[in-house]
Amino acid sequence: MRVRKKPWAEGYINDHSDLIVTAPETQLGHWQERFEKQQPLQIEIGIGKGRFIVEMARQHPEINFLGIEIQESVIATALRQLVESGLTNVQLVETDGANVDTLFAENEVDALFLNFSDPWPKTRHAKRRLTSPNFLVHYEKVLKPAGMIQFKTDNRGLFEYSLASFNNYGLTFDEVWLDLHNSAGNEGNVETEYEQKFSAKGPIYELKAHFPTLTH
Amino acid sequence: MRVRKKPWAEGYINDHSDLIVTAPETQLGHWQERFEKQQPLQIEIGIGKGRFIVEMARQHPEINFLGIEIQESVIATALRQLVESGLTNVQLVETDGANVDTLFAENEVDALFLNFSDPWPKTRHAKRRLTSPNFLVHYEKVLKPAGMIQFKTDNRGLFEYSLASFNNYGLTFDEVWLDLHNSAGNEGNVETEYEQKFSAKGPIYELKAHFPTLTH
Ligand SMILES: C[S@@+](CC[C@H](N)C(=O)[O-])C[C@H]1O[C@@H](n2cnc3c(N)ncnc32)[C@H](O)[C@@H]1O
Ligand SMILES: C[S@@+](CC[C@H](N)C(=O)[O-])C[C@H]1O[C@@H](n2cnc3c(N)ncnc32)[C@H](O)[C@@H]1O
Repeated sequence: MRVRKKPWAEGYINDHSDLIVTAPETQLGHWQERFEKQQPLQIEIGIGKGRFIVEMARQHPEINFLGIEIQESVIATALRQLVESGLTNVQLVETDGANVDTLFAENEVDALFLNFSDPWPKTRHAKRRLTSPNFLVHYEKVLKPAGMIQFKTDNRGLFEYSLASFNNYGLTFDEVWLDLHNSAGNEGNVETEYEQKFSAKGPIYELKAHFPTLTH
Repeated sequence: MRVRKKPWAEGYINDHSDLIVTAPETQLGHWQERFEKQQPLQIEIGIGKGRFIVEMARQHPEINFLGIEIQESVIATALRQLVESGLTNVQLVETDGANVDTLFAENEVDALFLNFSDPWPKTRHAKRRLTSPNFLVHYEKVLKPAGMIQFKTDNRGLFEYSLASFNNYGLTFDEVWLDLHNSAGNEGNVETEYEQKFSAKGPIYELKAHFPTLTH
């Protein structure tokens, strides 16, 4: 999702430094201090305009959510949604999720969401997919033992790749849905912006998996 | 697939005891003796009317194929196809594939095919699915180390279940196709009777996986 630069974004972000972090490395191991309550921390990489994370936070006041997004003009829109919501259990981070291992201490994260991640369809770009093994090794490090990953996409090629990638890495599958919206798995599902836009065109795929308890 | 009893089936099967075995336990560890050539042995459980295994055997004279089917009236049709083909690298076995571990010696089998296996959609029947862990343990025993399983189905629920079941058992995924007929994976694909009948109604799913080299 490439979005036109929003002239108001930078100023708006600077005005809300209580809700959004732009120099995240300084928070490593101390993310809980940014929240009102000390409670489980769940993160999403590539939040887009933020519908999912804001709605999840509304439904789960007992969890702290942290949303990572690389594009300033996109995260600014998410921030506006967050400001309007009045929620205190969401923090946003403007940064590259590829560096997730430099943002969090080991075992600092309880669960990770990936929603409609960029598919990078060319084989030579496979390493850039957020479900590739070079990212999984980072996720494993920052997630607690048996930490959960939940991945949704409408992109068949990316889902095929990710099933094999997660399996080959040694993750244990908890749930697989090949048409989420027409499944029992849809109960309690919180839709993302992309999901609302693309679910009419074909099935939404979902995988819930966790890392093995013994590290590799 | 329940098929009306065919009055000719029993006699036809008795007349072709060179191509079909009905007391298979006696062959344990000696299947190669039933074939003209000693070469890798690949098996299919639930062959139905036999289109897949006969066509595979035609395309792969360097492999011995063994087809297992529990219903006499169905395997009789497969046998008729085999007789007409003149192929010498296929043997059929009329038996319950649930007992696969009593039919073969350890490491006697090179690869296993499951095509459009009965879905047993009710959760309380999950144990009857040919992709459930109580069958996987048998397959692992008779397959060579790193032995391959190839599974195709049009049944979404069965495929979701099987992805999790194979993964949880510790199998390594080699290929996953969520719409085989519209994928690179379709090259060289041999269609079964069910596949030809049902592929117009929705996607065909395929999983190729292998057991870990170290046994559990
Ligand atoms: C296709 S959009 C999906 C947005 C949202 N998750 C949804 O489902 O509506 C992918 C988003 O991920 C962001 N993104 C891609 N790579 C990223 C990375 N390495 N770190 C953080 N965000 C990333 C993109 O900027 C884009 O906003
Ligand atoms: C849905 S049909 C599919 C037939 C064929 N594989 C195809 O794709 O056209 C399933 C077949 O598996 C056979 N079958 C089911 N359980 C079996 C078992 N335990 N052992 C051997 N055959 C079995 C059934 O009799 C039936 O012929």
